[in-house]
Amino acid sequence: MTTVRLAHGGGGRLARELLEFITGLLGPCLASTDEDSGVFTLTGTDWAMTTDSFIITPPFFPGGDIGKLSVCGTINDLVMVGAKPLYLTLALLLEEGFSLADLERVMESVRTEALRNGIKIVAGDTKVAARGELDGIFINTAGLGERLCGDKIGARRARPGDRVLITGSMGDHGGLIMALRHGFNPGRLRSDCAALTGLLPLAVEFDIHVMRDPTRGGVATVLNEIARASGVDVLLWEEALPVKEEVKGICEILGLDPLYLACEGRALLVCAPEESARILEELHRREEFAASREIGEVTGFSADPKVSLLTITGGRRLLPLPVEELTPRIC
Amino acid sequence: MTTVRLAHGGGGRLARELLEFITGLLGPCLASTDEDSGVFTLTGTDWAMTTDSFIITPPFFPGGDIGKLSVCGTINDLVMVGAKPLYLTLALLLEEGFSLADLERVMESVRTEALRNGIKIVAGDTKVAARGELDGIFINTAGLGERLCGDKIGARRARPGDRVLITGSMGDHGGLIMALRHGFNPGRLRSDCAALTGLLPLAVEFDIHVMRDPTRGGVATVLNEIARASGVDVLLWEEALPVKEEVKGICEILGLDPLYLACEGRALLVCAPEESARILEELHRREEFAASREIGEVTGFSADPKVSLLTITGGRRLLPLPVEELTPRIC
Repeated sequence: MTTVRLAHGGGGRLARELLEFITGLLGPCLASTDEDSGVFTLTGTDWAMTTDSFIITPPFFPGGDIGKLSVCGTINDLVMVGAKPLYLTLALLLEEGFSLADLERVMESVRTEALRNGIKIVAGDTKVAARGELDGIFINTAGLGERLCGDKIGARRARPGDRVLITGSMGDHGGLIMALRHGFNPGRLRSDCAALTGLLPLAVEFDIHVMRDPTRGGVATVLNEIARASGVDVLLWEEALPVKEEVKGICEILGLDPLYLACEGRALLVCAPEESARILEELHRREEFAASREIGEVTGFSADPKVSLLTITGGRRLLPLPVEELTPRIC
Repeated sequence: MTTVRLAHGGGGRLARELLEFITGLLGPCLASTDEDSGVFTLTGTDWAMTTDSFIITPPFFPGGDIGKLSVCGTINDLVMVGAKPLYLTLALLLEEGFSLADLERVMESVRTEALRNGIKIVAGDTKVAARGELDGIFINTAGLGERLCGDKIGARRARPGDRVLITGSMGDHGGLIMALRHGFNPGRLRSDCAALTGLLPLAVEFDIHVMRDPTRGGVATVLNEIARASGVDVLLWEEALPVKEEVKGICEILGLDPLYLACEGRALLVCAPEESARILEELHRREEFAASREIGEVTGFSADPKVSLLTITGGRRLLPLPVEELTPRIC
């Protein structure tokens, strides 16, 4: 392998190889690598800092656009380590010829989400590339947040017996984007793109071991990462998986698996079994998390961590880390 | 104007118009807009946070590459508000087909500059776009630093009588990049790309009113921004301007003005006249700042802030904010 491949940008095995290549080279200047956000302590406070670039095609879609996605994505990376998002930076990369009316729509989405979530844009940057050097608009956001519950939540903290919860239906965002790209009418389907700041009180109050948003690579990929980080096997219950009929339809036509489709406003929570019912009760009180469900469990420690699916017919299917990306430029 | 133009990404008047368009739309969710870095106070400490994207052509050049540029550029934005850089995020945007050997060189530069300046990469992101959707490699960095001298340094603080210093020769980076693009042999010329962390002790010790690195748009453009922010007129002395012979030659051939060429490792310092000699003495003690000079003065308050040049022949030439960018994709 001598060049970057499209699959290097996905959520799968090649992406992990590229990440390992890069982190190997950066080695001694890295602060931490395990979580979606970097975490550190300064002046007696625990902080989290994160960055994400958004290069989605198409940039506008039912339920959101690249602006909303950029703000929510970075907010969510902070929330997933139990941090209250405070400040965001916003860097725009624009192609010569990009419509100012479209830019206005995108900025209005940024503003709306920033205000809704009580964060400030603290610094920005705009670069323009010549026509053909960049496809439309790319956005990078970086975020700073204050961690509210120290390091009690982390990718390494899943334990045998733990339950896996999801805060809503799977793959709405990924399914929608793939439908749009193929020219299908997505019907009533909208992206689940949303900020997950509503989970912060639960992160503080309950004994949640892991929180992760299943973006690129979807639920199966992110659970593989958690399984690997914690050294455990995970079993998902197919009959419990919440998938909308529209997403099922898109997956059937395009040969996709909703377990590998990106969500942009859902979280996976891994918690002690005795906490699961109380957490679900709390989630169900909030409209945005009304479709939350228990979808699986951590079955045991493992030297070779795996994620499996207990199928409706009682079989077991391995859910491997994908090699290739199903859906490039999804977020 | 209904679409983004290449000049919107430069350092000139169109860039300011685009910035005003964007900040107007973001309005209530902006923390601050005056400086290169956003500044805020949390847990009793003054912080600065900044972001910058780098989309330079060519990505490798004598004296640096896009990796070095990305780390130094964000470090410098922090240093310019008197902040000690602590943490950086690093987001890579790669084109399918980009060489992994080139990526390795870029990451080695990132590591070298990070270690040299005592900063940590705290979070990262990698996205890949399909061939033709992105030109090679773009990098975004965001940085967090601790401000060491409160708000005593700021773009609004230039006062009549103040002197303008520059910490080295003008336009090396911009001149070099333009020479390379036109297939010239740049001879011994190297980019001035460097981190300016060495200025931090001076920022703490001396009465410096403004610090800015003259990147996009060069010395003339950045001084226009300072003049406007402080409501003052600035006069530069042509005979004092440090320009290398190689840069002069490139400018003559290509019809460029070194006053408008980007530097990537120089700072403009605006200070009280009685401090100037002591600051220069301190600068000259350090090899990296050995070519520092006094190059002009703040002549008075002004309702219509202007930057002028006192030419070698005794004439005065206005140095306006440029409308168009001389050198797109320069950093």
